[in-house]
Amino acid sequence: MMAWMNRESLALTVQEDQAVYWSRSRGKLWRKGESSGHQQVLKDIRLDCDADVILLKVEQKGGIACHTGRRSCFYRSLQDGEWVSTDPVLKDPDSIYGKH
Amino acid sequence: MMAWMNRESLALTVQEDQAVYWSRSRGKLWRKGESSGHQQVLKDIRLDCDADVILLKVEQKGGIACHTGRRSCFYRSLQDGEWVSTDPVLKDPDSIYGKH
Repeated sequence: MMAWMNRESLALTVQEDQAVYWSRSRGKLWRKGESSGHQQVLKDIRLDCDADVILLKVEQKGGIACHTGRRSCFYRSLQDGEWVSTDPVLKDPDSIYGKH
Repeated sequence: MMAWMNRESLALTVQEDQAVYWSRSRGKLWRKGESSGHQQVLKDIRLDCDADVILLKVEQKGGIACHTGRRSCFYRSLQDGEWVSTDPVLKDPDSIYGKH
């Protein structure tokens, strides 16, 4: 998955040993997994050569990073000019987010 | 590595079966490897859930993606509050870019 961080979310990620992002759409900190339970426990945190991208290596709780209930957000592959969903939904989002 | 794409670079990536990015700093298309020889041959191209991030799976020519001569741009790891370079330089950048 890809998400945004600001200075505070990065500091909290290190402090809490779990991924904390900055939700630009909601304008607030976002502790990954706060609704879903799918926290990301920090294993390693890496910085790129021009120091503007961070790569988190994590233990993904529940094995699901994506809000669609899939392991990864990158579940579509370009095949013959069409985006094709190739990865299975592991858990119904309604049950992840408690909408019954 | 992380880089930017625009519509044209994405189309060319698919058409040429190799990574083509948009260099924001240079304001031009950037065929990865055009100077270094470290092209990225396309294996798979993936789209994330909200359709604003693309993940390329590639065969990395020369085994070096980073302009510093390392395999990956993410060669620094946060250890005790300091960014520590953990990954080796595989090839001197001066020899990659022909500065003798």
